[in-house]
Amino acid sequence: MSKESASHSVGIVQTHIVQLFDEHHPLALDSGAQLAPVQVAYETYGQLNAEGSNAILICHALSGNAHAAGRHSPDDKKPGWWDSYIGPGRPYDTNRYFIISSNNLGGCDGATGPSSIDPATGKPYALRFPMITLSDMARVQKALVDHLGVKKLMAVAGGSMGGMIALQWALDYPDRVPACIMVGSTPRLSAQNIAFNAVARQAILSDPNFNNGDHYDGPKPVNGLALARMIAHITYLSEQGLHEKFGRKLQNRETFSFGFEPDFAVESYLYYQGSSFVKRFDANTYLYITKAMDYFDPFPDPETAARVLAPIHCKFLVVSFDTDWRFSTSKSKEMVRILQNNQKNVTFQEVNSHHGHDAFLLDAPSFKQTLAVFLDRCYREAVGMEAPVG
Amino acid sequence: MSKESASHSVGIVQTHIVQLFDEHHPLALDSGAQLAPVQVAYETYGQLNAEGSNAILICHALSGNAHAAGRHSPDDKKPGWWDSYIGPGRPYDTNRYFIISSNNLGGCDGATGPSSIDPATGKPYALRFPMITLSDMARVQKALVDHLGVKKLMAVAGGSMGGMIALQWALDYPDRVPACIMVGSTPRLSAQNIAFNAVARQAILSDPNFNNGDHYDGPKPVNGLALARMIAHITYLSEQGLHEKFGRKLQNRETFSFGFEPDFAVESYLYYQGSSFVKRFDANTYLYITKAMDYFDPFPDPETAARVLAPIHCKFLVVSFDTDWRFSTSKSKEMVRILQNNQKNVTFQEVNSHHGHDAFLLDAPSFKQTLAVFLDRCYREAVGMEAPVG
Repeated sequence: MSKESASHSVGIVQTHIVQLFDEHHPLALDSGAQLAPVQVAYETYGQLNAEGSNAILICHALSGNAHAAGRHSPDDKKPGWWDSYIGPGRPYDTNRYFIISSNNLGGCDGATGPSSIDPATGKPYALRFPMITLSDMARVQKALVDHLGVKKLMAVAGGSMGGMIALQWALDYPDRVPACIMVGSTPRLSAQNIAFNAVARQAILSDPNFNNGDHYDGPKPVNGLALARMIAHITYLSEQGLHEKFGRKLQNRETFSFGFEPDFAVESYLYYQGSSFVKRFDANTYLYITKAMDYFDPFPDPETAARVLAPIHCKFLVVSFDTDWRFSTSKSKEMVRILQNNQKNVTFQEVNSHHGHDAFLLDAPSFKQTLAVFLDRCYREAVGMEAPVG
Repeated sequence: MSKESASHSVGIVQTHIVQLFDEHHPLALDSGAQLAPVQVAYETYGQLNAEGSNAILICHALSGNAHAAGRHSPDDKKPGWWDSYIGPGRPYDTNRYFIISSNNLGGCDGATGPSSIDPATGKPYALRFPMITLSDMARVQKALVDHLGVKKLMAVAGGSMGGMIALQWALDYPDRVPACIMVGSTPRLSAQNIAFNAVARQAILSDPNFNNGDHYDGPKPVNGLALARMIAHITYLSEQGLHEKFGRKLQNRETFSFGFEPDFAVESYLYYQGSSFVKRFDANTYLYITKAMDYFDPFPDPETAARVLAPIHCKFLVVSFDTDWRFSTSKSKEMVRILQNNQKNVTFQEVNSHHGHDAFLLDAPSFKQTLAVFLDRCYREAVGMEAPVG
């Protein structure tokens, strides 16, 4: 039986919540503000070895959460968001590695964010929540990793914004991160990326139910948040993928409606994406996290890149998908160029896929293989094993 | 003095409005509905020759209007939308050609549309306006051309949706159109195009001021329409163009706001585009016209293409712009392929530009040259002149 066919799910998993900062030890944010208490939701898969050398931190993207693998109950409809990559015999091999997956600061799924209760008022923070950066998110994850007794990670990994957080980790904690994996990610948002984020935020901000962020006790800005999601969702898919999946197919009809209901299947699909998203996501979190993404720019010029990369001895795996136009291959290549210009060890792969940006969430055999090999190398270095012969 | 340097504007021009259909002769629409009265706004530049053989009809895009060239007064800030292409010595040479530019049916700038008064109620049609197609738009323009005494056009031309209308003209009136010019256009909207239109419409439909379209006496759905415009505007520009124009430049600030006001210049630019658009455009028109674009699909399969193209003896000029990702070169090539598969005469040019879809509105010297040569050929054929030697 091949290794691949022997791979299976991590099975039933549980999300844990831990408080990491309190009023005596508040979280110091990049903005200068302090935040307390701060809690975070996380899951772990596999076992930390005795030497504590096999831990991999997984960072999720904009709308993800700590539930990266397995199911919460046997009748759970969907597994975690990176399930096909995490498990016994899978690239993040839980027979070998200890996987930590944490919700991002500012989120709405167990980590402290704008929907959390502000102890000063007893009400949700809403827009009184301080602005956060990807560095702040990494700072909370660093406290989680400490809490779990992991002194040095074997690797930090993420897709899309998760890859940006992984990069931030490598820059902020050079002694703790020997390997960084960025999948479908970018060293910075482009003007077009910022433009899409800006329109998405404007959709939320201009929803009359937004109420300056104080919508937790009343009607929620579901129209604005749904629009934000629909706009973003178009950027997650490739034109080719949309064509193959929907083309100009009509939705449950033979002829045009000659009205303003959705005629085309792609319209119904988008509306469904919007309306299902608002059931699980907080509009304020959407604002904070997209702004944090916009701000992220660790290499604004070559001099800064040289300075911030100087202390780094991390090896990088940078993976892009050829039909991803949100964070295209050119962005990954820019990342590779910056690293190479600064004499860093970097492996790059462009993966063929029809799925655009969403490809980073989907089963991609050639990426899986690259990832497994890269992690094997990380593991051997971490535990002091020799490289395999041949 | 070269021809180019001798080119100049058509000068001060006037928009005319003419009623083309009335209750005795209503406009029969593709939907089966009838519409009356129907008026249209138009401008003309140059003089119709004695033989009536030098007329070119110009069709505008989604948000354009009949004002294609010149200025309405000496202190007019901006000339018409295709001004750099129309005038004495310019490709649409008004020394030689008679240019007709008409507002599209369903518009909000002089042509009958949802903001027009419904004679049955004495109030604006709003959503009681019938659904229209690009063929209906061409039908009204045909009546305008008849009204102007033009029996046969020399050419019909348009950019973006205007190119789609030009194609519709060639298909609907094969005896009247010996030449068709499609610039930055497409034979059909893709799933991605429809998706962007659907989100834009949803932004309007979900604006609480939309009021089922009856917003002419009250507050207008300006937030929704502004969002629609911002979404569309991103698709009008290339990623490269946005990068060159804005990059990650901040807007009138040295550091991040750490708040939700626009930080980046590209954000301010988009908000400006949205807020200025709502002053001149009707939200209902946006709904009707985008739906008409979605429906347009004259060549759904090769058999239909063969059937509808059989009566056509029109020569085509198809021009695309290499950074246009709304209607990319691949769409123009698809158009060319369909025409060539049906033994039609087609000239194709891909123009280099940083300006994405908007390039069709901007000065592009190589396109100008191609256009001038193509029109010269059309003119010589129309007036029975021999081709120039060499």
